[in-house]
Amino acid sequence: MEGPAEQVSRHVTRIDDLPIRDELRGKSPYGAPQLDVPVRLNTNENPYPLPEPLVERIGQRVTEAARRLNRYPDRDAVELRTELARYLTRTGGHEVTADQVWAANGSNEVIQQLLQTFGGPGRSALGFEPSYSMHGLISRGTGTGWISGPRNDDFTVDVEAARAVIAEERPDVVFVCSPNNPTGTAVAEATVLALYEAAQAARADGAGALVVVDEAYGEFSHRPSLLPLIEGRPNLVVSRTMSKAFGAAGLRLGYLAADPAVVDAVQLVRLPYHLSSVTQATALAALEHTDTLLKYVAQLKTERDRLVTELRAAGCEVVDSDANFVQFGLFEDAHATWQAILDHGVLVRDNGVPGWLRVTAGTPAENDAFLDAVRAVLKESKR
Amino acid sequence: MEGPAEQVSRHVTRIDDLPIRDELRGKSPYGAPQLDVPVRLNTNENPYPLPEPLVERIGQRVTEAARRLNRYPDRDAVELRTELARYLTRTGGHEVTADQVWAANGSNEVIQQLLQTFGGPGRSALGFEPSYSMHGLISRGTGTGWISGPRNDDFTVDVEAARAVIAEERPDVVFVCSPNNPTGTAVAEATVLALYEAAQAARADGAGALVVVDEAYGEFSHRPSLLPLIEGRPNLVVSRTMSKAFGAAGLRLGYLAADPAVVDAVQLVRLPYHLSSVTQATALAALEHTDTLLKYVAQLKTERDRLVTELRAAGCEVVDSDANFVQFGLFEDAHATWQAILDHGVLVRDNGVPGWLRVTAGTPAENDAFLDAVRAVLKESKR
Repeated sequence: MEGPAEQVSRHVTRIDDLPIRDELRGKSPYGAPQLDVPVRLNTNENPYPLPEPLVERIGQRVTEAARRLNRYPDRDAVELRTELARYLTRTGGHEVTADQVWAANGSNEVIQQLLQTFGGPGRSALGFEPSYSMHGLISRGTGTGWISGPRNDDFTVDVEAARAVIAEERPDVVFVCSPNNPTGTAVAEATVLALYEAAQAARADGAGALVVVDEAYGEFSHRPSLLPLIEGRPNLVVSRTMSKAFGAAGLRLGYLAADPAVVDAVQLVRLPYHLSSVTQATALAALEHTDTLLKYVAQLKTERDRLVTELRAAGCEVVDSDANFVQFGLFEDAHATWQAILDHGVLVRDNGVPGWLRVTAGTPAENDAFLDAVRAVLKESKR
Repeated sequence: MEGPAEQVSRHVTRIDDLPIRDELRGKSPYGAPQLDVPVRLNTNENPYPLPEPLVERIGQRVTEAARRLNRYPDRDAVELRTELARYLTRTGGHEVTADQVWAANGSNEVIQQLLQTFGGPGRSALGFEPSYSMHGLISRGTGTGWISGPRNDDFTVDVEAARAVIAEERPDVVFVCSPNNPTGTAVAEATVLALYEAAQAARADGAGALVVVDEAYGEFSHRPSLLPLIEGRPNLVVSRTMSKAFGAAGLRLGYLAADPAVVDAVQLVRLPYHLSSVTQATALAALEHTDTLLKYVAQLKTERDRLVTELRAAGCEVVDSDANFVQFGLFEDAHATWQAILDHGVLVRDNGVPGWLRVTAGTPAENDAFLDAVRAVLKESKR
């Protein structure tokens, strides 16, 4: 039996009782709902588990790394950057060397380091929305002002409107997400070149602005990588990730390619030894199996194209996609449709783009389940 | 034979040609020199490799994790935080639950997240120097003003002087490193309590200031952990790391214990999925072997005490140490002595504290080599 002492309720401290920054008050942590559902097509994960020989190779390489885990990791991750450069050279249409590559814990950390170096208090970053919402969130997290630029109705970037925003706002950093998340839209090379020129011209001090081409989904595109554009353009960065094409979302390995001076510059802000020995070992193992992993990418591109075709056949509007996901609509109440699809056991993503939802290309069986769910929901809504 | 085209030198972009933030210009990346020397006692690493059964267990757990590496990691790292809480409860003299624990890529990232939440532009952080230089560097990296507070000549914290600085500067964050790096000095509980009270009282808005007790070297101390102080003090955080006592510098796993509201608050700024599946799996394996690892800690404490005794016998001044390293002096030209010891094949650390050097407690053989080197250098200098 509990006495009076146990019944006294203790004061529970809430976030707002703490001396946190004012702009964080009332905010919620970023992140998609993690729900236990049969078919999860909401976070653009690769549906194919790593092949077993690669799993075993990871075990081997990490075991080796664990034998010297008492020592700090290679702070400069030279072996990993060399292998990433080799991969980019082989697949990106441009020769890249290790001193042009930098890696961090997910492309989010790459972007955070870039904003700490080139953005920050008193500076601003521009993105063309809807786009990857972390560009804006990490800007705010680093004290960088955020400017939301426009897109055309078909979600392509309106070059003239973009030029006008750049000329007026003179941002220090410009994000171009290609293929764009959540719309799937690739950006034409000519558009990036026009934005780059505008961004350099807009800054009166002559130092120019940094243009970050986020190619997180680059391997899934019909178009070649924009990687060759880094040549002769020291303020242009291409960022990549192993989360999608390499099927390694759990690894958290993002990287960038740029002029060696950019790589030197981010080292002024990176936390020392930011990339653990186990991360480096795992990424190196995955890079040994690139050919196998790129075969999965080819399968996913086929499935992505099938999703586009079948969603259109079912009566949906679908944005052309160069990614491993598809934005579809138009729904009067996208969130209600999201819930209805979830009620059929399939989790997709409501990114808050009015009228639209996003579905990740899964395995053929997962995509069938998704398409069945959509057809059923559309049928129900017509009753 | 090279033609004229090869002889044309290309323009090399330097960091200063890029539009980086002004305060980064002319700066160098943080980090100790990584030199290839027989005996390296410069970065406070644990000299004992992980025991082979643990190495194999890491291989097993990471292999399991790799089978679902295509999926994002547990964003909230619940299993890991539960095991860290269990470890703290068992060793820290205070019962801690998973909702009071948060983990990130090294205690540097923990500190960065705390400063993004409680510091940042327009706010300031205070530390008592000399201390762990990353407190100041990460403050600057997050736009937080840095206030360098004083220490006594014996490197203890002067409570009255500290109170005066807090009252005058009204910092938003106060760092107390115990045991302190690089001096090895533990901080008395009464001192932390006095600083906590002063920090709460100094802020006119009543919200108080965050006090971060950095116990990176806590397991090596003669004194009990300050962990119990988090009870009833929502603005007090104890930070820890697996780099030192767990012999896992290569893992990059730092963590904190605090009121659950603090854990909720840092989630407003943490990058989503910041902690990889392989990091979580490796840390969980290490936590299964805590008893073995703590035996190495006991050995290192004995060796640390031997270093203090023998350095004093050799004529050095030595600061009492509660860490796995020892600060020794006094040298007219500490950097010249650092070089002289290095010439004898032993790398120690020059932290820039005038007159003093720092040596990490290594294996008995490494410590013998170090002591021989110091004795030889002292003898040479007397000639």
